Amino acid sequence: MFPKNAWYVAALPDEIPADKPLGRTICDERIAFFRDADGRVAAVEDFCPHRGAPMSLGKVCGGRLQCGYHGLEMDRDGKTVAMPAQRVRGFPAVRRYAVEERHGFIWLWPGDAALATPDTIPDLAWARQSDWAFGGGVFHVKCDYRLMIDNLMDLTHETYVHSTSIGQKEIDEAPPVTRVDGDRVVTEREMHGVMPPPFWQAGLRANGLPDDQPVDRWQKCRFVAPSNVLIDVGVALAGKGGFDAPAELKANGIVVDFITPETATTHWYFWGLARHFKADDAALTAATRERQGQIFSEDMEMLERQQLNLSAHPQRALLKLNIDAGGVQARKIIERLCAEEAAGVATKEVA
Amino acid sequence: MFPKNAWYVAALPDEIPADKPLGRTICDERIAFFRDADGRVAAVEDFCPHRGAPMSLGKVCGGRLQCGYHGLEMDRDGKTVAMPAQRVRGFPAVRRYAVEERHGFIWLWPGDAALATPDTIPDLAWARQSDWAFGGGVFHVKCDYRLMIDNLMDLTHETYVHSTSIGQKEIDEAPPVTRVDGDRVVTEREMHGVMPPPFWQAGLRANGLPDDQPVDRWQKCRFVAPSNVLIDVGVALAGKGGFDAPAELKANGIVVDFITPETATTHWYFWGLARHFKADDAALTAATRERQGQIFSEDMEMLERQQLNLSAHPQRALLKLNIDAGGVQARKIIERLCAEEAAGVATKEVA
Amino acid sequence: MFPKNAWYVAALPDEIPADKPLGRTICDERIAFFRDADGRVAAVEDFCPHRGAPMSLGKVCGGRLQCGYHGLEMDRDGKTVAMPAQRVRGFPAVRRYAVEERHGFIWLWPGDAALATPDTIPDLAWARQSDWAFGGGVFHVKCDYRLMIDNLMDLTHETYVHSTSIGQKEIDEAPPVTRVDGDRVVTEREMHGVMPPPFWQAGLRANGLPDDQPVDRWQKCRFVAPSNVLIDVGVALAGKGGFDAPAELKANGIVVDFITPETATTHWYFWGLARHFKADDAALTAATRERQGQIFSEDMEMLERQQLNLSAHPQRALLKLNIDAGGVQARKIIERLCAEEAAGVATKEVA
Repeated sequence: MFPKNAWYVAALPDEIPADKPLGRTICDERIAFFRDADGRVAAVEDFCPHRGAPMSLGKVCGGRLQCGYHGLEMDRDGKTVAMPAQRVRGFPAVRRYAVEERHGFIWLWPGDAALATPDTIPDLAWARQSDWAFGGGVFHVKCDYRLMIDNLMDLTHETYVHSTSIGQKEIDEAPPVTRVDGDRVVTEREMHGVMPPPFWQAGLRANGLPDDQPVDRWQKCRFVAPSNVLIDVGVALAGKGGFDAPAELKANGIVVDFITPETATTHWYFWGLARHFKADDAALTAATRERQGQIFSEDMEMLERQQLNLSAHPQRALLKLNIDAGGVQARKIIERLCAEEAAGVATKEVA
Repeated sequence: MFPKNAWYVAALPDEIPADKPLGRTICDERIAFFRDADGRVAAVEDFCPHRGAPMSLGKVCGGRLQCGYHGLEMDRDGKTVAMPAQRVRGFPAVRRYAVEERHGFIWLWPGDAALATPDTIPDLAWARQSDWAFGGGVFHVKCDYRLMIDNLMDLTHETYVHSTSIGQKEIDEAPPVTRVDGDRVVTEREMHGVMPPPFWQAGLRANGLPDDQPVDRWQKCRFVAPSNVLIDVGVALAGKGGFDAPAELKANGIVVDFITPETATTHWYFWGLARHFKADDAALTAATRERQGQIFSEDMEMLERQQLNLSAHPQRALLKLNIDAGGVQARKIIERLCAEEAAGVATKEVA
Repeated sequence: MFPKNAWYVAALPDEIPADKPLGRTICDERIAFFRDADGRVAAVEDFCPHRGAPMSLGKVCGGRLQCGYHGLEMDRDGKTVAMPAQRVRGFPAVRRYAVEERHGFIWLWPGDAALATPDTIPDLAWARQSDWAFGGGVFHVKCDYRLMIDNLMDLTHETYVHSTSIGQKEIDEAPPVTRVDGDRVVTEREMHGVMPPPFWQAGLRANGLPDDQPVDRWQKCRFVAPSNVLIDVGVALAGKGGFDAPAELKANGIVVDFITPETATTHWYFWGLARHFKADDAALTAATRERQGQIFSEDMEMLERQQLNLSAHPQRALLKLNIDAGGVQARKIIERLCAEEAAGVATKEVA
């Protein structure tokens, strides 16, 4: 269950070089991404109208996507514009998708391109500002994308899944506060005067701060429909203002999570950290990215096995505790968006 | 097709250490096994009532099973007894299973725990007696567990599948005698004055006997419902009484086969040999176990490919020859037990 | 969709040694191939009538196929002729298939053996003549066999899939001419005064001809029902008669493609080249076979991914351009043969 008339992160920019398409399924749509002559990303159905070959096995020539089987060439609108020794005017176009490159990500609208609204792509201020540094990657995960949203909206799992890096007992002991605002959900907690866990010890050291002193730690998970979770995270020396402490007394950033359905039970997980200290330290960015990749990969087995359990027991009710409120509210928004989308389709069909 | 109100071997004791649960599916039930504070094995549904995570990915703390996702703790009855910062009294319990550790195996009753009768766990005398030594292991096999019962109740296959170790032409030539006694089937053969095959030559040598003399060899396959096959096997110097020969003139033991359904077309095969000579020779036990593991793995491809053939031809009748009588009778008992179990359920529902 | 009353290449002769059977599925039939005491190939159902074991896991003893599970022995007609300590007269026979070894291939008739007509096995003149040399192999391909027929009846794909070996732009630019004659289709093109691509440069050199001169190149694809494609290919020094040029002025041969359904969406692809120059140069045959294997393996990903695309969009219409005429006509013949076969079965059932 996912809305299709929405923006999803579909790829990282360097996954789509100038000369090669990228084939990727997003929300059950098989799509070939490529760059046109201006370097603008295009997205078309990954299906050659000639004989059904995947266009993504071809190459890009002069900004056109060339089928690797018999040479049909397609433009960014999915229209065939050339094929050796053929008149192509009557060839059926394949579907084109609305796609935008912005803030360091490729955003896809898998639904009706006519409804796509580029101005609703989330504004990622940190992606535009030089005092932030971003590093991240993408995982393929064999579970419903909503299990990943649940995961990220309830960080008590850090204590168990990531016990050697970001987990600490005090997370469980600090009840989260959750509130809903339209298509957004925020669930947050603060921990005062706790010892920093290893990941944040390293962060403090990297920012020139002591790693053996009590800190105030915060986690502010912000869900934005359809499936983005951006989490303010950080530690400040205890009693200096926490989240609002001066920059030189804290280490902080935003955990970036773009969670994109592939099918009903698989998804693409774009993860990363926007770091708000030592932004010009590329080695630190690389090392942090490496470490985060290790930590976040710890969730994979749990999520994929949870999916198998839920698929085996589809009717079974789960608990909805206070710690689950973030995920529960996010799912309600998703359900409402899906219902609205279905109703919209129904309305159109009646009209 | 398998009865669920019955004892099955589910694991070897060292598969369940004190600090880690074991996840294993038995008779279509996904189960987490763990040891409580007394070291007693417990078996609960492998499903966290919080969010459906597999409990078997967690750990054991103070005899409680702790979910590895968000820290819910469960006791041996499947009741949640703790969770950080939560009141757990109203949490639904998950199913608990009757389980016993006895004779060096973990026995599970996958059906209604209220009906479990620990006194019907088979008594394995050799497991209690110091003049016997046991070595064994477990295989996962992708076929109906009844194909393994058939396999073990018709040892003419040794001549073909195990031609270089325990097979010999005289097995085929000695028709078996089969008899049924309640939920038990015995099918047996004797071979008089034959040369021992390589496995038994090694056995004779290990017991200080010549390996180049004719022997009397016996195979007494004992099926016990639901799916245990214990086989008296051995060789004695020819003419000295065979099975009843004095211990110093023979090499003998019991092939142990506990055959536990995982699903309709897969099973866990617990195999081993209880050896009745040189019981204190641990090196011999290890070497024999290694060799038996090699020999028994020769059956795997045949059984799994047989399953594929039968799945492709589900209606096809098979032959039931005299050599098949053991398996045929065992299947009849299984079918009767399943019918009784279904009738019992029906009776209860009427009541 | 494939006719079953037809001859298909099922194996290469050396895939069936004297002592070992070969298990292979042809047109959804699981078959065990073996050689009888005269070395003649036999084909029987790969299903032991005793307990359903695959006969292909057994061995061949004195020209009989012996089951590797319990020793049942079968003759070339699928009749059980022996089993240790058993009377086998009443054993049901398994199905036997008509099979012939001819022209260096094993030909199977997967349908009704009573209808098999060995005289309709294609005559491969090159396989009998000493001035031709053959080298080839077999691939397992996960797509409908008709996609491979399409592939071979439209060689414009060489320009894209095989751009570094046999592809060249002029293929696309030379429209093919297609004609149908009963159960045969020919689609052909000629290219005059073109530079030879690398594969043919090597061919010219091997035949003592210059590799840097313009040539006339030809491709005559001959489809013969049910699924054989034999392609006259070659290059001659330009203006010397092309296909009809004297042998010393050209390098030519026949690309051999026997395309045998395994299931609806998988097939066995027997490929090779019958070379019509330097026929006694075994090293050249080996090197050419190696190179052809590399080139033809370039098609695999495209075909298998095309199959996935078509399976995901079963209703979608494909284009039928002039370059597709060969495949389109071949498919029409296959459809007619299947319809005739179905009608024949219906007629028989009425009778």
